[in-house]
Amino acid sequence: MTNLSKPEISPFIVMEILEEAQKLEKMGKRIIHFEIGEPTEEVDEKIIKKGLKALKDKRYKYTSSLGIHELRKLISDDYKINFDLNIEPERIIITSGSSTAILLAILSSTKINDEIIIIDPHYPCYPQIIKILGRNIKIFKTYETDNYQIDINELKKIISKKTKGLIVNSPANPTGVSQSDSILKKLSKLNIQIISDEIYQGLSIDYPLNTILKHDLTNSIVVNGFSKYYSMTGWRLGYIVMPKSLIRYAQKLQQNMFICAPTISQHAATGCYEITKKNKDLLIKKYKKNRDFLIKELSKMNININYKPDSAFYIFCDMSNYTKNSLNLCKDILDKVGLALAPGIDFGEDYKKFVRISYASTFSDIQKGITLLDSYLKKYIK
Amino acid sequence: MTNLSKPEISPFIVMEILEEAQKLEKMGKRIIHFEIGEPTEEVDEKIIKKGLKALKDKRYKYTSSLGIHELRKLISDDYKINFDLNIEPERIIITSGSSTAILLAILSSTKINDEIIIIDPHYPCYPQIIKILGRNIKIFKTYETDNYQIDINELKKIISKKTKGLIVNSPANPTGVSQSDSILKKLSKLNIQIISDEIYQGLSIDYPLNTILKHDLTNSIVVNGFSKYYSMTGWRLGYIVMPKSLIRYAQKLQQNMFICAPTISQHAATGCYEITKKNKDLLIKKYKKNRDFLIKELSKMNININYKPDSAFYIFCDMSNYTKNSLNLCKDILDKVGLALAPGIDFGEDYKKFVRISYASTFSDIQKGITLLDSYLKKYIK
Repeated sequence: MTNLSKPEISPFIVMEILEEAQKLEKMGKRIIHFEIGEPTEEVDEKIIKKGLKALKDKRYKYTSSLGIHELRKLISDDYKINFDLNIEPERIIITSGSSTAILLAILSSTKINDEIIIIDPHYPCYPQIIKILGRNIKIFKTYETDNYQIDINELKKIISKKTKGLIVNSPANPTGVSQSDSILKKLSKLNIQIISDEIYQGLSIDYPLNTILKHDLTNSIVVNGFSKYYSMTGWRLGYIVMPKSLIRYAQKLQQNMFICAPTISQHAATGCYEITKKNKDLLIKKYKKNRDFLIKELSKMNININYKPDSAFYIFCDMSNYTKNSLNLCKDILDKVGLALAPGIDFGEDYKKFVRISYASTFSDIQKGITLLDSYLKKYIK
Repeated sequence: MTNLSKPEISPFIVMEILEEAQKLEKMGKRIIHFEIGEPTEEVDEKIIKKGLKALKDKRYKYTSSLGIHELRKLISDDYKINFDLNIEPERIIITSGSSTAILLAILSSTKINDEIIIIDPHYPCYPQIIKILGRNIKIFKTYETDNYQIDINELKKIISKKTKGLIVNSPANPTGVSQSDSILKKLSKLNIQIISDEIYQGLSIDYPLNTILKHDLTNSIVVNGFSKYYSMTGWRLGYIVMPKSLIRYAQKLQQNMFICAPTISQHAATGCYEITKKNKDLLIKKYKKNRDFLIKELSKMNININYKPDSAFYIFCDMSNYTKNSLNLCKDILDKVGLALAPGIDFGEDYKKFVRISYASTFSDIQKGITLLDSYLKKYIK
């Protein structure tokens, strides 16, 4: 069971499609980006203002390894406001992006050779990170016909003595689906460490705001961050809510592996909690318009979405009417018409006929992208 | 040999001393900081200007996983200017601090259960990171009487089949010593992966600028960053120079584990290469004044520095005339007179009678700190 060789790491294929797209852009070609899980939204001026102030006030040295207290307190307050939950700031560690939070979560709660369950289709980096850290992956599949909901009874059957953790991502990348509240509750009762990656929290179009902490205030680890809801991708800022029993271990990991999260980003993020409700609602309204338009237009092309992508600016499209190898298809679409899409293979072995569309861009670009896709399919496939 | 339990991680004790000091400061007590390896220097205005511009120009989204080309090119050019070396930008990955660069270095070049040599006294995080990643540590000691130089013949004796890597830190934390050029050359000829942590490069008072790449342009991994020489600690920005054979693997690690380094920090750091020679020289002059004053004053207190701390704003002091347990001593000095020092135990089991002084602060604070130490020793020890 021991990993005796350096693990084979898959590239994050969507990042490679992006880099290819950027190359084409440098050559003067106009590219429409449906591939990357990065909002094109500008960062709110409240955040920018705090960032500029931190820079001008010379607040750019190391912070406490746990992060600045002000931000941890604001996050704690937000759990109180949104869910009436008491999450002490002492349980929150500010991290360099939610990626680093996932590393801390896995390293704090499992050991080498432990088995960790991930839910297919999955965020591409989960299995790679698990392998890199010498843990073993067990895949549990969800299906479009079940609205990608986790069948807890089936899940229980694959939990063995070696299984120590499970990563759930709700709302999810790549499907844009939220797990139902009762599923989250049942997950929280399992006798393994639940790592709930809630990075798309807040980005729900027709599903209520949720967190696994509602059902389990004690044992779950929650990963979250500022990249998606607040569009702060390049700021590399996330956070983790840890059980009290693991917080000290996680802090020591943070001290030794990362020192602290970027200081200016930490100060800037305090501005997130000053954004008006009106602006937040506007964002969701925009995403709803994009999503509804896409689903309608895709169905006209015989690409039918038979589940409910309620959140998280993604639609996972079964392209089996058009291809058996969506990676080649994505490369060809990029090449021929300048539309970048994420191939399904990034999200699991079984999704070679799927593509993921990210609709976190302007309505105008969504329209343009759909026109490009339609023209490609008509010209090169039909 | 397999690590079957979650590794015991030591805290980064100096960070804990810092946090204790900050608590005292919040209570209104004035603390002099000799403990933390963080320059009190302000970040040069060229850097701030670039950072402000990036923010205003909204350059805060994800960058390429390898980092922005402009910065990688400037680093490459710097190797050409300083050493007449051709390091292609393609071999350089921009990382979230040099800590992350060390993670990438270890993960790219070794596997679980491999043995990695570290040089005592060592940077506190090396053994912790090695343990966290499931590798094994072998310690090789250097001695004050040898000016903390590595005895290559002795080193060769401990290299076994299991030994796959060695981390060398020159100039070094906590001694402030540079390994001689001939030692670097000999290290580069060993048949194990050399990870040369050159984070204190540039901070040499009376030793020429150096890099292991001078002796081995092909196989060595070099870690560096912007936290020490450019005082950009909270910006979390470092870089790694990888052998061509490992760059693709390291890129995949970066994509999956970290996405990219903080974007604003990357743009800001391009300003580093516009800092005038006059300003760079002024910094070294300041550090020289601090160091020379400290050595003279310490000797008056019967704390003799019997080696040459030529670089890296540290002096590693043998306090055996005063204590057998410098951790307790450091806590007591902080408590009684408000001077924070780093206890030797952070740097290796054998340094319980040592303290590390960081002199990257103002001359006025250095004077005050020395006065406090003198008063403490006179009042509480003698």
